[in-house]
Amino acid sequence: MSDAPTACILIIGDEILSGRTQDTNVKFIATRLGELGIRLRECRVIPDVPAAIVDAVNACRATYTYIFTTGGIGPTHDDITTACIAQAFGRNVMRHPETERRMRAHYGDSTNEARLKMSEVPDGLDVQVIENKSYFTPGYRIGNVFVMAGIPMVCQAMFEAAVPYLARGDAMRSGSVDGFVREGDIANELTAIQARYPSVGIGSYPSMRDNRYFVSVVARSTDTAAINRALSEVEIMMRALDGTPETHPPT
Amino acid sequence: MSDAPTACILIIGDEILSGRTQDTNVKFIATRLGELGIRLRECRVIPDVPAAIVDAVNACRATYTYIFTTGGIGPTHDDITTACIAQAFGRNVMRHPETERRMRAHYGDSTNEARLKMSEVPDGLDVQVIENKSYFTPGYRIGNVFVMAGIPMVCQAMFEAAVPYLARGDAMRSGSVDGFVREGDIANELTAIQARYPSVGIGSYPSMRDNRYFVSVVARSTDTAAINRALSEVEIMMRALDGTPETHPPT
Repeated sequence: MSDAPTACILIIGDEILSGRTQDTNVKFIATRLGELGIRLRECRVIPDVPAAIVDAVNACRATYTYIFTTGGIGPTHDDITTACIAQAFGRNVMRHPETERRMRAHYGDSTNEARLKMSEVPDGLDVQVIENKSYFTPGYRIGNVFVMAGIPMVCQAMFEAAVPYLARGDAMRSGSVDGFVREGDIANELTAIQARYPSVGIGSYPSMRDNRYFVSVVARSTDTAAINRALSEVEIMMRALDGTPETHPPT
Repeated sequence: MSDAPTACILIIGDEILSGRTQDTNVKFIATRLGELGIRLRECRVIPDVPAAIVDAVNACRATYTYIFTTGGIGPTHDDITTACIAQAFGRNVMRHPETERRMRAHYGDSTNEARLKMSEVPDGLDVQVIENKSYFTPGYRIGNVFVMAGIPMVCQAMFEAAVPYLARGDAMRSGSVDGFVREGDIANELTAIQARYPSVGIGSYPSMRDNRYFVSVVARSTDTAAINRALSEVEIMMRALDGTPETHPPT
C-alpha cells in the first residue's frame, strides 16, 4: 500500500467557494482513483486568483505523485488556469498547433482570440496534450499535473483520457456493514477490531434512518480477504446488539 | 472588501477522499459565509491522518481569519479531530465538565469512555464550547478555529450556533444573466465589461440546456448597484446575440 501513487485534486473555482455550485467532480475522480489504485490524499478548492493557484500547484506537485486540476480552461477572462500553471512551472504559454488548426477549421469566421485561448498550453517537452473522445478541446499534462475542465461531463471525459498515462497501485476495495446501532455502543469493540486488522482502514459513519440511529462501518483495504474477516467481526458485534446488520462485501 | 474577514474550511474525512460520500457541507457553509460577509478563500479535504490534520490546521489558521473544521468528533477510533487540534495548538485534551455531566445524566449506565470522548476539548483559556439548539454535544472554538461535526444536519446546527461569535464584513451579493449563447462569442465583450466594473467579480459558467449552448454570467460584489449595472450590460450583449437573456438581480 505504501508505494501506491498518490494524488491531489485542485478545484479552481470561485463558483464553489461562493456556494453557488455544488462540486461533484471530487466524488467522481476520487472513486476512479480508488479503482486505479491511486491514493487520493487531499483536495483543495481555491479561488480564481493567480497567486493562490500558483502557490497551490507548486505546493501540491512537490508532495503528490499526481495533481488533477479542474476548472478555468475556457475562453473567458476568468479562465486563468493555463496561465497560472505556466507561471508555476516558469514557462510561457503557446498555442498547441493541432488544436489551433482544428479550432480554425471548425469555427471558420467565428474563430477569435478568446476561443483560441482554449488551444493554449504551457511550452516545454514535458507538456502533452491529451485528446478525449467527447470534446473538441483537449486536457493536457505538464509534468505530474493533469489539467482538466470544470464542467462535470467534460472533466470526466478528460479524466478517462488521462487514465492510460497514470501509474497504478493495487486497487483499494471497500465493503461495509450497516446496522441500527449507536456509535457509542460499538466504539470500544470497533477499536479492538481495527487493532486486529492493521491493513484495513475502518471508518464509522453514523446517520439517522427511519428516526433510528444507524451506523455504516466501512472497511477499506487492498486485501479483500482481510476486509471480509473484519466485516465479519463487525457483523457479529452488531448482531449481538440486535442491530440487524446488513453486510455489503467488497466489490 | 479587502478588510472583510476571511475563512477556510477543513473537511476531515477519508469518506470524502474515497469517493464514498458526496460532501455537501462546503456549499452550505460557503453560502452562509457569503451572507455574513466573510470571504471563503479555500477549502481542503484531508484524510483521517494526524500529521495531515495538524499541518493543515496550523497552515490555515495562520493564513485566514477563521477556520471551520468538519468531521471526526464522534466516539469511534477514527474520530481524531480534537486530539489533532489540541496537538496543533500544543495543548492537552480535557473533558468539558458541563458536557460530561450532561452525558452522564443522559446515558446513565450506557455511559462509557468512547461516548465521553465526545465531551473532550483542548484545554486553554481561548477554548469555548458552543452549545447549539439541536444536538446534545456541542461544537467548540479554539482561537480562530471552529470545530464542527461532519453529519450535515449537525454541522449546520453547530455552524449557526457559532455565527454570533463571528465578525462580519459587507455581505457579498450576486446576480446573474443566463442566456443561450456560446462563451466564445461573448468572451471579448465580457472582458471589457469586467474591466469597467473592477468592484464586481464576473464569472462565466457554460453548460448545455435543451441541447443548446447556455451560459450563466454571474456578478458578485458588495455593491448591489454596480452588480445591476454590470448585469444590464451583459443582458444587452446577450440580447444582441439573440441569446434570450434572463436576468436574476442580486437578492
